[in-house]
Amino acid sequence: MALAISTVLNLPFDKAVASVRDALADQGFGVLTEINVTDTLKAKLDEDMENYLILGACNPALAHRALGVDRQIGLLLPCNVVVRTDPEDPSNSIVEAMNPNLMVEVSGEPELTPIADDATVKLTAAIASLEASR
Amino acid sequence: MALAISTVLNLPFDKAVASVRDALADQGFGVLTEINVTDTLKAKLDEDMENYLILGACNPALAHRALGVDRQIGLLLPCNVVVRTDPEDPSNSIVEAMNPNLMVEVSGEPELTPIADDATVKLTAAIASLEASR
Repeated sequence: MALAISTVLNLPFDKAVASVRDALADQGFGVLTEINVTDTLKAKLDEDMENYLILGACNPALAHRALGVDRQIGLLLPCNVVVRTDPEDPSNSIVEAMNPNLMVEVSGEPELTPIADDATVKLTAAIASLEASR
Repeated sequence: MALAISTVLNLPFDKAVASVRDALADQGFGVLTEINVTDTLKAKLDEDMENYLILGACNPALAHRALGVDRQIGLLLPCNVVVRTDPEDPSNSIVEAMNPNLMVEVSGEPELTPIADDATVKLTAAIASLEASR
């Protein structure tokens, strides 16, 4: 199973981040958390890396349904969306959303399948809209 | 594979949260993100649920090593630690940390194994310290 639904955008990092936020919002995902990995590793370890941001995206209705099936599923929420500079071409940005079907795979809970499928449709639409506006 | 390293504490929610933060800090995990699921679902959907908090715990050195092996692994970072009221006994709190070996399982990347093992040792120690202080 693929770890991510992903794409490469011909956009610099900051513009890619703004576009991703808009695309997620259009699909009903709020961004509840944000980790600037680059800044965190610089501050804590004095290590350098390319721009790397983890957005914690949550569609409340889907989260509520998933928690109703499996109270442990918060361990895999929110749905992470990584935006990062392409190490091979810094004028490009890589966008990767966690494949929601991982929730089903790791929990072994088949009742999560329709919820993961709905999340996949929405995240795939968000990624497709980014590709369409390139 | 178990989804979580978990325990049940005979502590009310607020005290359990404080203890979990201390136990994580003692093992080198900072809490980078925090989602109050109860408040979020109330605000967005007017749905009620028991106290339910998702802490995003990160040990910077382990995160740096993991990203060096697999740049996609930010999809599973930080390590979620859920603290929630036990629905069966509200005087108890359930604490669940994501099993770091899920990183290896879902990525299929064997080089992540020693990093996941190190994270498991630290999270297991954090959970054990909570149990010891009950």
